[in-house]
Amino acid sequence: MELYIGYLAGTMGTICWIPQAWRAWSTRDTSGLSLAANLMFLLTVSLWLIYGLMVGDMPLILANFCALLIVISIVLAKLKYK
Amino acid sequence: MELYIGYLAGTMGTICWIPQAWRAWSTRDTSGLSLAANLMFLLTVSLWLIYGLMVGDMPLILANFCALLIVISIVLAKLKYK
Repeated sequence: MELYIGYLAGTMGTICWIPQAWRAWSTRDTSGLSLAANLMFLLTVSLWLIYGLMVGDMPLILANFCALLIVISIVLAKLKYK
Repeated sequence: MELYIGYLAGTMGTICWIPQAWRAWSTRDTSGLSLAANLMFLLTVSLWLIYGLMVGDMPLILANFCALLIVISIVLAKLKYK
């Protein structure tokens, strides 16, 4: 039971930023987005990816690799349409 | 070494949304924020908190309890200033 909740949380935490990336690129409206928050989140996801690679945890690697791509796209949108 | 990176990632992942919450409440500009993304993230953090409580992991409980408060404040700002 705990495991299912953990997997669900991990999956949700990866896909939840897709609507934000979509909104930023489709509306070109990023005025409400905090660049500091998204850069810190980019660093967070990178650290989790490095941690996953170091301890060889595949779910952690996969989830954070996908999240990294999505968060990079949000940061790029924020830098382009500021 | 891995442990330090894990703790750093966990701490950064909790505090990184403070600038976003601050920006939303101080500028009242939430037009660029995706409500769907933030609601899904709220669910993610809630699931991690439940998971932490179930497995009795104190760092997970503390980090996600703090994150929950910050994300709730972002969602409330989005609902108030949409």
